Amino acid sequence: MSHELDELIRLFAKLPGLGPRSARRIVLQLVRHKEKMMAPLADSLARTMQKVIPCGNCGNLDTSDPCSICSDARRDQSVICVVEDLADLWAIERCNLYRGQYHVLGGTLSAIDDRGPAQLNIESLIRRAASDTVKEIILATNATIEGQTTAHYLTGRLESCHVSISRLAQGIPMGGELDYLDDGTLGAALKARLPF
Amino acid sequence: MSHELDELIRLFAKLPGLGPRSARRIVLQLVRHKEKMMAPLADSLARTMQKVIPCGNCGNLDTSDPCSICSDARRDQSVICVVEDLADLWAIERCNLYRGQYHVLGGTLSAIDDRGPAQLNIESLIRRAASDTVKEIILATNATIEGQTTAHYLTGRLESCHVSISRLAQGIPMGGELDYLDDGTLGAALKARLPF
Repeated sequence: MSHELDELIRLFAKLPGLGPRSARRIVLQLVRHKEKMMAPLADSLARTMQKVIPCGNCGNLDTSDPCSICSDARRDQSVICVVEDLADLWAIERCNLYRGQYHVLGGTLSAIDDRGPAQLNIESLIRRAASDTVKEIILATNATIEGQTTAHYLTGRLESCHVSISRLAQGIPMGGELDYLDDGTLGAALKARLPF
Repeated sequence: MSHELDELIRLFAKLPGLGPRSARRIVLQLVRHKEKMMAPLADSLARTMQKVIPCGNCGNLDTSDPCSICSDARRDQSVICVVEDLADLWAIERCNLYRGQYHVLGGTLSAIDDRGPAQLNIESLIRRAASDTVKEIILATNATIEGQTTAHYLTGRLESCHVSISRLAQGIPMGGELDYLDDGTLGAALKARLPF
């Protein structure tokens, strides 16, 4: 096999969820359809490499800084939804319900991984929260120990900013069957029960 | 999400074995590690696009024409192993046992998919087989109906070339347990039994 193809397979195999076998299959498909699949992918990757930059305001990735969400005047400027990661921002955008701003922390506090507040985009969040336009901060970190620890730390830091702080509701997921739910979720849903 | 990222996810999602979810995960990983993962992948794809070409002699893909296998003087020029596809060539090369030449057909004869002999690299195989240096043709098409039909067609066409024609042995795969084998394989292994 040529060195170029070998190298390409090695790089694909390092992507999440792929291994040598699936990488080989992908590269084969690409070389078989050079014009229809490989050229667009190569172009798109080169374009993304060149154009996509982090937003200096919220940490989102986009082709402009400030990003299209921060600079969209139709979006609510008074709410900031704080997420751990770009993936979470995409997930919330996909549900098509939220029309406010975002702030991407870039991870969670973690004693094990030695990540303190200085490693996250926290100072810029405090600066944004202190502005007069911002009324509410939604802490949408993951429902994991690290996510919740980070949310608790942030509530402390945001106290002086005079904003209302909220978090996502916890409970039974849509379509969830009680029998298959873990005890923690079921307990939380029971405690947070609502009038019918 | 920016148009560039959206497009990149769409392209990844079309690769074999991937869908929108896994493509999103891959693109996230790429934009998170722009210099360490995305740049090498973009470069490697662009280089492969530019450099990798089909070998005019055997149909293999490589950076040179004739390819590194065809032009390797240490390889046996008297044997040609006929395979359906580049993937099969790679598979045989990986087992590190075969040191002859190859010929990539580019598929099989198929009445359903309307693929006749003219769509495959058959004429060039006949020309190669007619040369004086070639003594043996190994028909290593898949053990499927289409693969075996193609092999049968080729034996007919190669009759006039005065070469010996062989095919891969069929039998029990390494580590195979009789109880789990299909009847066809077990029957073939029984019929082709060898003295102990």
